[in-house]
Amino acid sequence: MRFLFLVQYDGTHFSGYQRQRELRTVQSELERAAAEIFGSPVRIVASGRTDAGVHAEGQICQADAETNIPPEKLCACLNTLLPPDCKVLASAAAPEGFDVTRDAKKKTYVYTAYHAETEYPLLTRYAARLPARPSLSRMAMAAELLEGEHDFAAFRAAGYTSRTSVRTIYSAAVERSERGGAEVFTVSVTGNGFLYNMVRILAGEIFAVGCGKETRSLLRAFETGERSLLAGTMPARGLCLKEVDYGVPLFGHRQGG
Amino acid sequence: MRFLFLVQYDGTHFSGYQRQRELRTVQSELERAAAEIFGSPVRIVASGRTDAGVHAEGQICQADAETNIPPEKLCACLNTLLPPDCKVLASAAAPEGFDVTRDAKKKTYVYTAYHAETEYPLLTRYAARLPARPSLSRMAMAAELLEGEHDFAAFRAAGYTSRTSVRTIYSAAVERSERGGAEVFTVSVTGNGFLYNMVRILAGEIFAVGCGKETRSLLRAFETGERSLLAGTMPARGLCLKEVDYGVPLFGHRQGG
Repeated sequence: MRFLFLVQYDGTHFSGYQRQRELRTVQSELERAAAEIFGSPVRIVASGRTDAGVHAEGQICQADAETNIPPEKLCACLNTLLPPDCKVLASAAAPEGFDVTRDAKKKTYVYTAYHAETEYPLLTRYAARLPARPSLSRMAMAAELLEGEHDFAAFRAAGYTSRTSVRTIYSAAVERSERGGAEVFTVSVTGNGFLYNMVRILAGEIFAVGCGKETRSLLRAFETGERSLLAGTMPARGLCLKEVDYGVPLFGHRQGG
Repeated sequence: MRFLFLVQYDGTHFSGYQRQRELRTVQSELERAAAEIFGSPVRIVASGRTDAGVHAEGQICQADAETNIPPEKLCACLNTLLPPDCKVLASAAAPEGFDVTRDAKKKTYVYTAYHAETEYPLLTRYAARLPARPSLSRMAMAAELLEGEHDFAAFRAAGYTSRTSVRTIYSAAVERSERGGAEVFTVSVTGNGFLYNMVRILAGEIFAVGCGKETRSLLRAFETGERSLLAGTMPARGLCLKEVDYGVPLFGHRQGG
């Protein structure tokens, strides 16, 4: 039987999602707890991996296993064995033929940053610090250019390839708010898929345009695929996988709020 | 010369503000850094102490010392020696005759909580979890009863006394928002002073009324001063000292956002 899990984690002390020998990862924590609950080794696959230091508000994972525990109670059982920085917020039986990686229709990531002369202790865990104060309207202009179907070859870490680098961004929104006594800027991107480091690179370019860089480089990067035209990759700690959308509700009984 | 500091700290790994032998406290971290910058031991006094685990977005501290460093540059110097969970966001020379404890006119604290069946990893550091979902309108009703001048004798930890337990709450506001995938409830209280544990107790009572407790106990607690009429003290991690108001601007050059 296939089970689905809504998983939240604070990425600060994880070496990313994927299991790696001798490193603390989200997958190894989940699999350790699941092995105890199911009574045998279980592989837990996510909608996609996240890097070291990246957070997830709503990661979706699946596991194939047998148990007499009702699917919606599995989360509570797993949580008794999981550490405080990784918890299963809901669990359910998967729909017939469902695959957590293949069937993901849209993912939403949020990147958070603030401008200040020093790190703010109440922000530093979940936000990156910017060297200058960006203009929200300039950020919005850059975000708008990213929307739609494009070849994002320039927006991935050097050395990484995949079948195609064409992706569709359904929406890229920017927002300014107050948090921890600072002015905080967020970039929220929803797309049908993201290349390696793509969100951290596009957020970096949006902040760079916000701080005065011309949008010409961004347009040239689409044409040429040259990574060097774009700003640096933003730090992991500002990035959060907010939501994975499968086009259908997966958890009838969603825990808590 | 007297210097003022705007200090932010994440209280998670501090045994409160006040210096204590062999414990990691905010005061000892600040004094350790200040002793190096000023070249001699310096006492750093805050507007008021905060308990173990309580956060501060904008604590105000003072130090009497001599230095050739311009007052507004002191924060950057201190930050080079301070840990990531405690930073000085701004520094200035104190106005003539100013005292950081005596002259505080108003303090604002924010208490944050959420309702869920399990701890949310992205919320647990700065918010407490509620056993049931409160009604915002019932919370608002309780908050309104707290506003004004009252004898808050019932709203302090047992065994603590002070000259008078009469305090004025200028405003007590409640708010609901979305954070980390959960519904988050905040209580913001501004008053001329607070007794020991007063904010954690009054927040607990507001949440209790929100969850169905009658307001009669709260009114009786004002009349009788009986602590036992009120709900339990909320955990420290949901509490944050947001602002101390002296009626005058203290930092002309405020760093960052």
